[in-house]
Amino acid sequence: MTFPATAADLTWMNLALKEARRGVGLTSPNPPVGAVIVADEQIIGQGYHRAAGEPHAEIEALADARAGQDARRLRGATIYVTLEPCSTTGRTPPCTEAILQAGIRRVVYGTVDPNPAHQGGADAFFSRHGIHVTSGVLRQDCERLIRPFAKWITTGLPYVIAKAGQSLDGRITRPSSESQWITSAAARAHGRRLRQRVDAILVGAETIRQDDPQLTIRDSALSAGKEQPWRIILTRSGELPEQARVFTDEYRDRTVVLRGMEFRDVLRELGQRGILTVLIEGGGIMLGQAFHAREVDEAHWYIAPRFCGGGRPSLAGLPLPASVEMDEVQILPMGDNVLISGRPVWPTPENVTAAAPEKVP
Amino acid sequence: MTFPATAADLTWMNLALKEARRGVGLTSPNPPVGAVIVADEQIIGQGYHRAAGEPHAEIEALADARAGQDARRLRGATIYVTLEPCSTTGRTPPCTEAILQAGIRRVVYGTVDPNPAHQGGADAFFSRHGIHVTSGVLRQDCERLIRPFAKWITTGLPYVIAKAGQSLDGRITRPSSESQWITSAAARAHGRRLRQRVDAILVGAETIRQDDPQLTIRDSALSAGKEQPWRIILTRSGELPEQARVFTDEYRDRTVVLRGMEFRDVLRELGQRGILTVLIEGGGIMLGQAFHAREVDEAHWYIAPRFCGGGRPSLAGLPLPASVEMDEVQILPMGDNVLISGRPVWPTPENVTAAAPEKVP
Repeated sequence: MTFPATAADLTWMNLALKEARRGVGLTSPNPPVGAVIVADEQIIGQGYHRAAGEPHAEIEALADARAGQDARRLRGATIYVTLEPCSTTGRTPPCTEAILQAGIRRVVYGTVDPNPAHQGGADAFFSRHGIHVTSGVLRQDCERLIRPFAKWITTGLPYVIAKAGQSLDGRITRPSSESQWITSAAARAHGRRLRQRVDAILVGAETIRQDDPQLTIRDSALSAGKEQPWRIILTRSGELPEQARVFTDEYRDRTVVLRGMEFRDVLRELGQRGILTVLIEGGGIMLGQAFHAREVDEAHWYIAPRFCGGGRPSLAGLPLPASVEMDEVQILPMGDNVLISGRPVWPTPENVTAAAPEKVP
Repeated sequence: MTFPATAADLTWMNLALKEARRGVGLTSPNPPVGAVIVADEQIIGQGYHRAAGEPHAEIEALADARAGQDARRLRGATIYVTLEPCSTTGRTPPCTEAILQAGIRRVVYGTVDPNPAHQGGADAFFSRHGIHVTSGVLRQDCERLIRPFAKWITTGLPYVIAKAGQSLDGRITRPSSESQWITSAAARAHGRRLRQRVDAILVGAETIRQDDPQLTIRDSALSAGKEQPWRIILTRSGELPEQARVFTDEYRDRTVVLRGMEFRDVLRELGQRGILTVLIEGGGIMLGQAFHAREVDEAHWYIAPRFCGGGRPSLAGLPLPASVEMDEVQILPMGDNVLISGRPVWPTPENVTAAAPEKVP
C-alpha cells in the first residue's frame, strides 16, 4: 500500500540524505545511501553505506537502533531510506527481509532503484507483507545523489565530471616563462575537492609532460576512508616521462596508462572495472574528446580574471558540431575568481537554438 | 589655506559625485563634473557639466542657487566640486573667479586637474584670496569618474573599454547553423549600456560582415541628450558590405571606416578628434590588437554557460607575450550568465608572477 508523504517525512528524509552524503566517493560500485529509523517522532537509529561489501544503510541503521537499546522500539517504527531498499541477494542479503524481520511498519524512500531489473521489487515485497510504503520523498535530491550509479548501472559507463581552470579568454596555458597556474590558490583547492567524489582521475599525456601533477587527495579530512582515485593517463604516442610524479610517488600503483584508445572505449573499460565516477582534469584535447563523445555529465569551469591571449583553449581539438548549453548552472565567485558549473545539455535537432529571426546586436 | 575634511564633507561630496555622473558620456572632450553648494548645512544649489561648450558644474550650481532666490546665502557658503575648479580661460571664463565673485568662503574638491599645466592653479588662486580649500575628499571616486579625461589629456589617446560576449570555453562565434547570440538577452542588454558612456564604438570589418550590428543606443532613457557614438570600422582589405546597417541606417553619418591603420594610430586619430572614450565590441582579432597595444583600460567579459568548442576565441591573433592580470575585478552574475570586469594590469618585469617554485597541482 502506498501512502502520501507528510511534512515530517521531509525532515527525516533530509537527515537520511545527510547520512547518505557521508558515503559519497566511498561506495563504488554501489551508490551512496543513507537511512534513518524513527519511532514516536524520535530517531532511534541511523546509518549510511560506507563501502562496497559493508552493510547497506538500512542494516547500519537497524544495528544502530539495536546498539542503542532501542531494539524493542523498532517494532512499529518507520524507516527512511534515500534509495529503494534492495530486494535481491547481492554481496549481502536483501534489506527488505531485514526490515520485515525488525518489525518496521512503514518504509519511506526517496527514489527507485535505477537498475531496471530490481526497480519496484521492494514495493511488491512490502505490499505482500502489509508494510506501508511511501516513495518519491525528496526524489530529486535522492536521484541527484546517485546519478553516477544510475548512469553506470544503465549504460555501463562511468559518470564524467569535467574540470578546467582557465583565463578569461578561455586558455588553459600561460606563456612558458610564467607560473603554470592560471586560477587562484583558493580556486585550485576548491577544484581539488572534486577528487574526493571520484574513483578515477583522467588526464592526457600532455598534462603529465607539462604540469607533472600529483592528482592526489591532499586534504586529510577529505581523504579519510577514501582510497587514492586511480590516475588514468591517456596517451597516443606512449611517450611519458618516467620520472613523473604519478609514476614515482607513494601512490604509483594507482596509476594506469591507456594507450591509443578512443574516449568512449576508455569509459567502457573503466566502467567494467566498477569505476562509477571519473574526473577529467585536462588538458584541452582530452576535454575536447569528452565533449565530442557527448560523455560529460557535469562541468566545473574555474575562471581567473586574466588574459593569456594564446595557448590552448579549454576545449581544443576538432570543433564541436553544435554548441552545448548547460542546465543546473551555478555561479560561485571566490575572491576574484569564479566557478561556473552545470550539466551539459547535449544538442538534438529539437533543442538547438534556432538562428534568431531578427538580428539586433 | 588647506583644511581637513569633515564627515559632512563626505556627504556633500557624494551628492556632487551623483550630479557629476549625470554627465557621463555627454561631456567630451571635457570630463564629467558635479557641484553642490551648501549653506548652513543645506543645499542651496547644485549642478553638473552637461556638455562641452555649456557652463561648468560650478557655474551651473551658482546659477541654481541664484534661481532659487538663495543668492544672498552664497556669501559665506561652501562649494563642493568633484574636480579642482578651472583657473584658466577656456571656452568659458575661469570658475575660480566666479566662485570668488559669488562670495563663497570655502571650496572642497575631490581631485586635482589631471592636466599638468593647470594642476594646483585653483589652490594658488584661492589662497591669494583667503578662500579656504580642502582637497582630496572622496578622491578615488572622483578620479575614477574622470579616468577617460585624465588619460586623454595626458597621452592624447582615448580611454579604451573592451567588451566581449563569449562561451565558457572562450569562443565568440557559434557553429554557423546556430543563432549568432552566445550570451543571454539580459547580458546583451547590460552590455549595450556601455555604449552610453562612450564617444565611439570600434569594431573590426569581420564583425560587420558576420553580425551586421547596429551599434546604437536603443534605450531612449539612456540616450536622452546623448549623440549616437561614432561607429568606427577598422578594415585591412577595405571590403565591406555596402548594405550593412551601419552604412544604411538613420545614423549612417556617424559611421567612419578606417583602413589599414595600426591600432595605436587609430587611437591617436580618435584622440585628436576629441574622442575621450572608445568601446571595442569585437571581434577577437580587434580585441587581440588592443591587448597587444596594451591599450585596454577596462574589460567587460560576459560569459554564457555554453561550450562552442570551436570558432575564434575572444582574444585572437598573435599570442600575447605575457599574460595580463586585472585589478578592481567585479563579478556580477545575471541569471545563468556572468559578467567579469576589471582593469588590466600591464605586465612589467616586476609584476609578472614568477614561475612557482613548487609545483603541486
